[in-house]
Amino acid sequence: MLIEKLHWRYATKKFDATKVVPEDKVERILEAVRLAPTSSGLQPFELIVVTNPALRQQMRPIASNQGQVADGSHIVVFAAWDNYTEERINMMFDLVNEERGMVNEGWEAYRKFILSIYPQRDPKVNFEHAARQAYIGLGIGLTAAAFEHVDATPMEGFNPEQLDELLGLRARGLRSVAIMALGYRETEGDWLVNLEKVRRPSEQFITRMA
Amino acid sequence: MLIEKLHWRYATKKFDATKVVPEDKVERILEAVRLAPTSSGLQPFELIVVTNPALRQQMRPIASNQGQVADGSHIVVFAAWDNYTEERINMMFDLVNEERGMVNEGWEAYRKFILSIYPQRDPKVNFEHAARQAYIGLGIGLTAAAFEHVDATPMEGFNPEQLDELLGLRARGLRSVAIMALGYRETEGDWLVNLEKVRRPSEQFITRMA
Repeated sequence: MLIEKLHWRYATKKFDATKVVPEDKVERILEAVRLAPTSSGLQPFELIVVTNPALRQQMRPIASNQGQVADGSHIVVFAAWDNYTEERINMMFDLVNEERGMVNEGWEAYRKFILSIYPQRDPKVNFEHAARQAYIGLGIGLTAAAFEHVDATPMEGFNPEQLDELLGLRARGLRSVAIMALGYRETEGDWLVNLEKVRRPSEQFITRMA
Repeated sequence: MLIEKLHWRYATKKFDATKVVPEDKVERILEAVRLAPTSSGLQPFELIVVTNPALRQQMRPIASNQGQVADGSHIVVFAAWDNYTEERINMMFDLVNEERGMVNEGWEAYRKFILSIYPQRDPKVNFEHAARQAYIGLGIGLTAAAFEHVDATPMEGFNPEQLDELLGLRARGLRSVAIMALGYRETEGDWLVNLEKVRRPSEQFITRMA
């Protein structure tokens, strides 16, 4: 079932610019990303969903002139925290306490442990760690799109500084790390749509230590 | 459907050491990870599946003494390429040509583009990029486990150098970045199993630019 969906999906190269992904489908895809697990449950990233047509056009030159950011109906930017601050860590630990309606001793000890390590670390190390967590969400988002029969393109070929500038991300302590463009394939103009999906065979990808 | 599975899963804290995940389920989980999309299709990581009981015991002190690596039946180590070399890039581009039975001009131009950038880059930058791709696979693997009703724990709390040493990864040009422990929850000993899953509300996680 899941495997079939993963076979169905592919990195769409050409979207039909006249088609718009229905909001209920978009909602479910975003909700799947929101539910993604992350290290210590910190969710150190946010999603920026760009539907504004002018903004999507402006994204095109920033994204190596790739058409998907203009032709997809929903451009989902994965933006990682630029750093782990005391404030951000406390915000998530407090939220957990609020939602669970309890303060747990082990959980508070864990908060102290994280606070004793993350905020003191080089922000670059923290950002890279946060970026990895965003990619867990990206993997789940792409899977969720396939379940909705929505085409999706994972994209890294863009200038993050320029995109951050365009979307006002740095002021919010965020840095763009990946894009998931959503839309519907235009089979005619897509060179990849009919080509076989290629992965290394299991023997070259998986080592068993039994 | 997918959303339900994501609600069902949680980072299992205590596995029942007497239960073993059936091989057909493990195969489907690993196959989902193998099908994960990665940047330029390079699949810059491998999976090491540890079932050997002595080896799992040895992993425990390396993993901050967390019991899951010993009590889970299948410990899946995500190991990223330590660098993008010319050889590795050509291996994947050649494989694509072989599998598709054709040499495509645009694809060969893209190979040259990648070869002109990746091998010259700081290996640390390449490793971080590869690690992010592994996390796409991690997100999909955790989702696949939920579809099999197999419990899974994503783990970063281990000493990567020591784990690389134990599993002989550095000699293979690999570096461990994350663990996915698979097994079945032991409800009695798991402090997290009955606690609510907490995520930031959508309004704090998603920004719409319409």
